[in-house]
Amino acid sequence: MNLENIVSPTLILDKKKCLNNIRLMAEKAKKHNLIFRPHFKTHQSRIIGRWFKKFGVDKITVSSLQMAEYFSNDDWKDITVAFPVNIREIETINSLAEETQLNLTLENVESVEFLSKELKFEVGFFIKIDTGYGRTGVSFDIFLLIDKILKSSSTCNKLVFKGFLSHSGHAYNAKDTTEIIDIHKDAIHKLTLLKQQYIDKYPELIMSIGDTPTCSLADDFSEINEIRPGNFIFYDLMQNKLGSCNFNQIATVLACPVVAKHKDRKEIIIHGGGIHFSKDFLRIEDKKVFGKLVLLNKKGWEETEQDFYLTKLSQEHGTLQVTSDLFNEINIGGLIGIIPVHACLTANLMKDYLSTDDEIIDHFSGK
Amino acid sequence: MNLENIVSPTLILDKKKCLNNIRLMAEKAKKHNLIFRPHFKTHQSRIIGRWFKKFGVDKITVSSLQMAEYFSNDDWKDITVAFPVNIREIETINSLAEETQLNLTLENVESVEFLSKELKFEVGFFIKIDTGYGRTGVSFDIFLLIDKILKSSSTCNKLVFKGFLSHSGHAYNAKDTTEIIDIHKDAIHKLTLLKQQYIDKYPELIMSIGDTPTCSLADDFSEINEIRPGNFIFYDLMQNKLGSCNFNQIATVLACPVVAKHKDRKEIIIHGGGIHFSKDFLRIEDKKVFGKLVLLNKKGWEETEQDFYLTKLSQEHGTLQVTSDLFNEINIGGLIGIIPVHACLTANLMKDYLSTDDEIIDHFSGK
Repeated sequence: MNLENIVSPTLILDKKKCLNNIRLMAEKAKKHNLIFRPHFKTHQSRIIGRWFKKFGVDKITVSSLQMAEYFSNDDWKDITVAFPVNIREIETINSLAEETQLNLTLENVESVEFLSKELKFEVGFFIKIDTGYGRTGVSFDIFLLIDKILKSSSTCNKLVFKGFLSHSGHAYNAKDTTEIIDIHKDAIHKLTLLKQQYIDKYPELIMSIGDTPTCSLADDFSEINEIRPGNFIFYDLMQNKLGSCNFNQIATVLACPVVAKHKDRKEIIIHGGGIHFSKDFLRIEDKKVFGKLVLLNKKGWEETEQDFYLTKLSQEHGTLQVTSDLFNEINIGGLIGIIPVHACLTANLMKDYLSTDDEIIDHFSGK
Repeated sequence: MNLENIVSPTLILDKKKCLNNIRLMAEKAKKHNLIFRPHFKTHQSRIIGRWFKKFGVDKITVSSLQMAEYFSNDDWKDITVAFPVNIREIETINSLAEETQLNLTLENVESVEFLSKELKFEVGFFIKIDTGYGRTGVSFDIFLLIDKILKSSSTCNKLVFKGFLSHSGHAYNAKDTTEIIDIHKDAIHKLTLLKQQYIDKYPELIMSIGDTPTCSLADDFSEINEIRPGNFIFYDLMQNKLGSCNFNQIATVLACPVVAKHKDRKEIIIHGGGIHFSKDFLRIEDKKVFGKLVLLNKKGWEETEQDFYLTKLSQEHGTLQVTSDLFNEINIGGLIGIIPVHACLTANLMKDYLSTDDEIIDHFSGK
């Protein structure tokens, strides 16, 4: 990697680490007889998308119809939009459904009734199930509403029921890996009850789960048929703190120029702010943390002996406090690396990547 | 405004409100005999930039060299980059300096020495002064370092000293408008001492200040020569809570499709998340708040009688809790408006605007 060519904040990607992260998840899916339908909202990149193909992946997840169009244009033919359908986008739904196996996520009768009238091509659909996160979805035990959705959709031959889809987003609030596994077990228990209720009528029912912490840590998927993790390809500081990955699995780092130093406060100011990292943060030892310092080298990056964090962030500036020794080693005009707290949001802001092999890698430019 | 045409999250802009916000600030600058050098990092738009010209603005502020290039390409000829110079970008500095009156921000001798060797064209420079924010800049009373920078720069005929530049970012943490004014008075006091020290040697010295809260609220600028507010053109929920503007001055709102409703929790789920709003938040009544609900109409938007806030935000989803009455009025597939907490970051993510006159307005696509 030619660090001399980096003049402004640049998102660096270690392809080997990405491939290893994909391989591990693909092997886990195979071992447990699961459909591996990775979420592409993390990388949002056609080039990175193609890396999955050599691991046998031909089904993907995205979070918006615009992202579905982007990947459909790169010849992905089986795409689930894991976000409650936005019926205002019916034109895009119809144009995508003509070209691909498009799967929508539904959770209310109003959307089903609208789609029944307006769909021009066949789409699959998953019913979004809430297993405890409390954000979206029908609670796993409200069979009455699930039955209503199924009944309403059954009058439309363009709506094909695929199964139930959930996302244990509350795993991100877990205090340790034991709690993540407990959340996973609880979700599996609830989804199993749901499956038992509907499997006779729908023998090809797919039970689909999605978050990176549980998919990384769990080793029992029981009645689950499909996994949709996304972040695992890059991981990040948040996942590392949750215990989903070890530090060496993290595959992205933001290279940031050093623009100022304040000796009295032992503070380093970098070009790298909210418009690069996002403002997502972790709390570490009662401090807001926006990223972690690493030292860049020709091959990638390495950890410092002691941990140093990005603790202040404005629109363009980032601030780190370090020891005197490190303060003296870091020069104005130098480059330091910062492991992002939340790689998905950082990649979404940075838009493209520079690989450690000096390759520029694309990122979807829309929203 | 044709709301029917809005199908996905869209940043709406009220041009009349923007023009009024510009007019008020331009009049204030004129009244106090101040150079009005607005910060264009808020809107990052060539079209909006041109609106300033009719108020006599011909000098602007930006936060990166890439943004300087974007506006230089639209014929802005006097541009201050209010961010500590990143010497790795020397090529861009030289190419911009050939075309425009480029003003850099310096705060250390290392950068001066580097520029002295590498500059090919004349640039102006401001020394960044810290009046209490504690982020960047030389403390207002460390004359020793200021003298070193001035001495070092004096050996290079391409470095022209313009003055001192400060940003009272700590005004954003003020608990009320009295505290904002106190911060402003304190900054003016410190900058006046500094001016007295250097005015004899540099009779054309410019004292430049920058934040929207103090520029909006203060009515005494004493020894100050230039103001660089940016956010005031849009304002936002944060500025409204600080007291910098009234609610009707806020000029942007994000139109968001309603994708789900949860009656048991009286929660509305919108398409509108961290990739649209950013994750900046305010605390209101001990809750994290990411935006405020307004009702959209053909002319723009109006407040609800009671206040409702966007209190949960993930990558694509936003959640609001409302009353039963409002819950029943808002339909799946409908549109609601959300006033952003921090308009600069929201505009930076959304990239373009739709005016209430149905005009699409550009936004710089880089970083």
